[in-house]
Amino acid sequence: MKYDFLEQIGEISQLDTEAMAAAQAHIANLTVPPGSLGKLEKLAVQLAGITGEVKPTFTKREVIIMAADHGVCEEGVSAFPQEVTPQMIHNFLAGGAAVNVLARHADAEVVCVDIGVMSDLSHPNLLSRKIRYGTANMAKGPAMTHDEAIQSILTGAEVVQEAVQRGVRLFVTGEMGIGNTTASAAVMCALSNIEVKDAVGRGTGLDDAKLLHKIKIVEQALRVNSPDAADPLDVLAKVGGLEIGGLVGVILGAAANRCPVVIDGFISSAAALIAKMISPVASEYMVVSHVSHEQGHRLLLEQLDLSPVLHLDMRIGEGTGGVICLHLIDAACRIVSEMATFESAGISSGAQENNE
Amino acid sequence: MKYDFLEQIGEISQLDTEAMAAAQAHIANLTVPPGSLGKLEKLAVQLAGITGEVKPTFTKREVIIMAADHGVCEEGVSAFPQEVTPQMIHNFLAGGAAVNVLARHADAEVVCVDIGVMSDLSHPNLLSRKIRYGTANMAKGPAMTHDEAIQSILTGAEVVQEAVQRGVRLFVTGEMGIGNTTASAAVMCALSNIEVKDAVGRGTGLDDAKLLHKIKIVEQALRVNSPDAADPLDVLAKVGGLEIGGLVGVILGAAANRCPVVIDGFISSAAALIAKMISPVASEYMVVSHVSHEQGHRLLLEQLDLSPVLHLDMRIGEGTGGVICLHLIDAACRIVSEMATFESAGISSGAQENNE
Repeated sequence: MKYDFLEQIGEISQLDTEAMAAAQAHIANLTVPPGSLGKLEKLAVQLAGITGEVKPTFTKREVIIMAADHGVCEEGVSAFPQEVTPQMIHNFLAGGAAVNVLARHADAEVVCVDIGVMSDLSHPNLLSRKIRYGTANMAKGPAMTHDEAIQSILTGAEVVQEAVQRGVRLFVTGEMGIGNTTASAAVMCALSNIEVKDAVGRGTGLDDAKLLHKIKIVEQALRVNSPDAADPLDVLAKVGGLEIGGLVGVILGAAANRCPVVIDGFISSAAALIAKMISPVASEYMVVSHVSHEQGHRLLLEQLDLSPVLHLDMRIGEGTGGVICLHLIDAACRIVSEMATFESAGISSGAQENNE
Repeated sequence: MKYDFLEQIGEISQLDTEAMAAAQAHIANLTVPPGSLGKLEKLAVQLAGITGEVKPTFTKREVIIMAADHGVCEEGVSAFPQEVTPQMIHNFLAGGAAVNVLARHADAEVVCVDIGVMSDLSHPNLLSRKIRYGTANMAKGPAMTHDEAIQSILTGAEVVQEAVQRGVRLFVTGEMGIGNTTASAAVMCALSNIEVKDAVGRGTGLDDAKLLHKIKIVEQALRVNSPDAADPLDVLAKVGGLEIGGLVGVILGAAANRCPVVIDGFISSAAALIAKMISPVASEYMVVSHVSHEQGHRLLLEQLDLSPVLHLDMRIGEGTGGVICLHLIDAACRIVSEMATFESAGISSGAQENNE
């Protein structure tokens, strides 16, 4: 399927294979046994392919928090009331949320975007890009229109484009939206063969009865809307969310700008699956961070063929797992730029010199 | 069993349960759904129990690299020649190894201890605490004497004690010693019901034939020495290593000084298993970092009942996985000290306010 709106985001290129080969050759000379750096080595090679540089550095980095509300909340699918969405946005803007603390620790800026919160919000540091006041209740009909879905993606890409103009070269996906694990589970099931009961989790803390109810609501939303499994845009519009669409745009926009994008938790991974179906090459720009405690996340990462580096049992979203992963990206970059080679350190380079 | 030498290391206390309860209560008020911080939350509570402070910080931290050689190398169990041990020590002292780069990135100092290298080494920054010139070949008899095993443990504890006097309050275990995955596999099998074929891995890069040979050598070492499974000191002496004993001392010494100690990879975990058997309460001071690609490590961590946070597929040792984990310890500390509470941020605190 061809998506005309991709022209507005820009072409997404294949990774730079020459830079990747050069990075691989450089790493082979570092004073470690071959392959022993594991995923740090793979990350370094990927970052070379993305940036075209063997020794990239990422001084400016941002976590982009897309915030929106979900009409499906009227079905009682979340442990928290919907008013928590704007309350948490104010917490992000005041710097007091987990993602703020972890972003400061990783030298990243937090950017918060109102792409579809139910209430009117205003704050000097909030990016107001509201497309509509929350989605409609997907248990009764489509969450949004086809045009709104496209608009949400383009909004995410624009936010990235503006950040790139400020010199940002590394992005982390973040989100806030009471009800968005429900939408993400629906998206995941609509695009895969995964069963609803395996995709739906406890979100911010549902008990057993409410978990069963949430499963029924997702099944109902899929039945009522019949999203087309071959058309990720149709799935996003019918059972997705505005912040999920925004993150699809963040991912595609980062890839179009040859910037790595760290995929955070369950909601971000649902967006990543949509982005990958819209533009398969975009997945090469993704760095997976953690596997969350939300039950469907592991299955979703398998769909994406991504293997997480962090196993923290977190289930918070916001971009928290993603910003922690920045330390690992920095570690990979520093390994490549600072380590001694076998030759420079005067060290025997292994089996070929081993006469045993 | 009672170990008299523990008196020289100092008493290891139970964790401070009052501080842990206070930390847990504080975390319950932070602006996240209950329990959603997963292992970061558990880590914060453990650090409170270790230090007695709800909001600890760890400004000075050190990775202690215990280096020694292994007589069993004459059986051809490693892909690298034994001369690499001193070569890598010089690399550590020159700051060019992977652990140096990752330690700088995590604001940690690297301390290198010659506790039993085969050759004479001298460098202003090397701690020379050589107990003997490498172990004897455990395939033919005991690796060292009972007294040397005790001496290796006391040496590790002394190195920690000196660091504590310099203000260090957080330790990472590191090691270097060609052949030490062989000794660690033997230690692990001697102390558990794990079979040799499941404990022995490729180390720095053995092919299939050499892997089978390594398995046979470990089996032979266990048969020749018959270490007493109930006596970790006997196991350390007969099939262990001087750096493994040194790390046992680092762990016990850190615990006796109420300092957290991050357990690195396979060799460090073998030392941790010995330390736990000598003093079970010491395990409460351990922070597990990563599960390495070395095949026995996952089983060894299960023996220790430790669940790693990092899945990096590394197999390098040195303390590399351990120093990366410092970022997560810092993250846990900053979460506790910097995050807003539900009250301070004016946020609805969840299900009890949810009328749906």
